[in-house]
Formats: sequence, C-alpha cells, structure tokens
Amino acid sequence: MSQGHFITLEGSEGAGKSTNVDTVCEMLDEAGITFYRTREPGGTDLAEALRKLMLAEWEETIDGMTEALIVFAARNQHLKTEIVPRLERGDWVVCDRFTDATFAYQGAGRGVDTRFLEALEQTIQGTLQPDLTLFLDVPPALAEKRIAGRSKDRMEKEEQEFFDRVRQGYLTRANKHPRMKIVDATQALDHVRAQVREILGNYLGSVNV
Amino acid sequence: MSQGHFITLEGSEGAGKSTNVDTVCEMLDEAGITFYRTREPGGTDLAEALRKLMLAEWEETIDGMTEALIVFAARNQHLKTEIVPRLERGDWVVCDRFTDATFAYQGAGRGVDTRFLEALEQTIQGTLQPDLTLFLDVPPALAEKRIAGRSKDRMEKEEQEFFDRVRQGYLTRANKHPRMKIVDATQALDHVRAQVREILGNYLGSVNV
Repeated sequence: MSQGHFITLEGSEGAGKSTNVDTVCEMLDEAGITFYRTREPGGTDLAEALRKLMLAEWEETIDGMTEALIVFAARNQHLKTEIVPRLERGDWVVCDRFTDATFAYQGAGRGVDTRFLEALEQTIQGTLQPDLTLFLDVPPALAEKRIAGRSKDRMEKEEQEFFDRVRQGYLTRANKHPRMKIVDATQALDHVRAQVREILGNYLGSVNV
Repeated sequence: MSQGHFITLEGSEGAGKSTNVDTVCEMLDEAGITFYRTREPGGTDLAEALRKLMLAEWEETIDGMTEALIVFAARNQHLKTEIVPRLERGDWVVCDRFTDATFAYQGAGRGVDTRFLEALEQTIQGTLQPDLTLFLDVPPALAEKRIAGRSKDRMEKEEQEFFDRVRQGYLTRANKHPRMKIVDATQALDHVRAQVREILGNYLGSVNV
C-alpha cells in the first residue's frame, strides 16, 4: 500500500518516549532524510481536540470502549489527512504512539475485546502497519518514580495495576509483530539512546539508506 | 435485555422533529408515564462535547468514517451512563435521534460501509434497539425552505443531494425495521402531530398503558 517509511514509538509516560522521538528524528536528519513528525491521538486539529476530550477529567466514568472509539476516530482522521498521503508519495513519517497503544491501553488496560480492536484496525488501516516500532519498556514502578513531579492527565492518574496490564499488552503485541523492537528503558538515558540508534541504524541499513 | 421502553424520533432539520419530541413527551405526561428525555449525539457531558466537535467547522475535511466513530463513541457513553441503566430498571426513555441517523447520515449520506456500521451497532448495542421509532419524513427541498432563516451547522450546510441520500437511507432502514413508523411531515404541524399521537397511542395500547 505504502511506498514510504512509517516509524512509531511506544511506551508509557516515564519511559523517555519524547526524548527518544527526538533521537530518532536527529538520526534521520543525520542521514539526510526529510520526515514528518506527528503524534497520536492527535495530528490534525480535530484529532487534537478529540485527544483533549479523551485525556480531560470528567464527572462521568469514561468507558474503555468510548476511549477506543475516540482514539480510532482521531486515527482515521490523522491517517486520511496527514499520514497516508505522505506514505503514498514515499515520505517518512515518525509518530509518537499509534495503534499498538490502543491494544495496550484500551485492550489490555481497560479490557476492551481485542477482536473488536482488530476489526477496527482492519477497517481503518487495511494492510497499513508501521514499518518499525520502538517499544520503550520500563516497569511501571520505575516509570512512576520518574514522573512523580509532573502534572498528570486522566490516563496517567491510573493505578499501578493498570500500567502493569498496559505493559503486558505491549509485550504481547511485540511477540506477535516482529516490527516491534523492545528497548530496555530502565537504563540511563545514554544507554537507551544507544539502543534506539542501533535499532534504527539496522532498519536504515535494511532499506539501503 | 431491557424491561423499559425506548422511543426515538428521526428526521432531518426542517421535519419538525423537536416539536414532535415535545408532542411525544406531552402524551406520555398525559398517560402518567415518567420518562427521561435526551438526544444524540449527546446526552452526557463527554458526548455533548463530542457532538460539538462533530458539528463544528474545521479547515480539514471530516471523513465520514471519522464522523461515524465519533457518533458511536458518544453513543456508547450515552448508553452505558444514561440509557441502559434506565431501561434495565423499567423506565421510559425518549431520544431525539439514535442509530438510524448514523445509517442515514454517515451510511447513505457519506457512503460509510453499512456492514461496518452494523458491526459497530452490534458491538455497542448488542440486541438493544428502540421499541418505537417515529421517522418524520419530508422531501429535502421542503425541509430546506422551512429552515431557510436558521443558522446552520456543518451537517446542515450540505447540498440537497446529500439530504436526498439521507432520506433514502432512512426509508431503506424503515423498510427493514417494523419498529420504524413513517410520519408524513410535509403536512401542516397539526396534522403531523395528529399522526404522531396516533402512532404513539397505538404503541401505548399495545403495551397496555
């Protein structure tokens, strides 16, 4: 379907995801590759507005299925408006989180049926999958310590059992999809960056860049 | 699944839908029935916020599938939070628009695959369907004349061909679902109200109220 290259990064807060999105972008710059950097949920005006609603605090309890449908609404809009046109003309796209996060957070975390998520994924994405996904893995207890001082959104305020399930969801998904590379994000940032550079370097080599 | 009674009204703007929701509510009042009046998309704080995003003007083109996913996200939240608990304890619910509108607007109007909408309907609603649906039918040209002076949202600004498809979508759905009763809304309001009262009266009789 696509001629371009679609790279995604996954992991919970405190895994160093944003910093390592920077690392990926720096390395593409060094290789002389122009790319489009974006994030999910988000990436268009409407999708960013949907993200805001999803992460806000509400008096009502937000059902896991509601979250999944909001995220896929934002994703459909993001794909059709920004991502797919770029991939089709051969560009590179770097995205902070994508569908793996929905399987981890709404599937494993909230208990939304994986078969339903797979059906939505199939309908919205067809055969489109990231070419390379870096999953920054860190035990929730350590991640929690790292973000202790930050202000937290509705998802980040969940208890540790939730993040244990999210991590397990990511690992289950990684076992199914060889495109997902697990990065040990418990280490110091320099070591994590070195792993990210090695994995991305291997990918660039494999596509002759 | 439900012990209560779920009554919905459908139709495009200019069909006199709001006025006839009033008529239904008056008649239930006269029969001494307490009921919960609500609307879609909407009915909870989050669902109303989703409605606002969906009807707003955006610089980007809003894909029909994005609309369908937003509407079902709002519906799932509305059902779980407000509608299903009431129906389960035997209450009456009157809703201004429901899933038939998604088949008409996003399915027939925007061209979203009906099988996908049916799959979402099945996942979100299970076997839950309205017990009675009043579809206020009016040709788009007449509806357009009636709302000529009003300020219009993103959907209402669509061209007449869109509303022709929406109407056809409603009629197709009505042919499949005997719970949907077609009200000729081309007539003067008094005549339309008389039809609504007759149909609702028949329903009340059939459930021994």
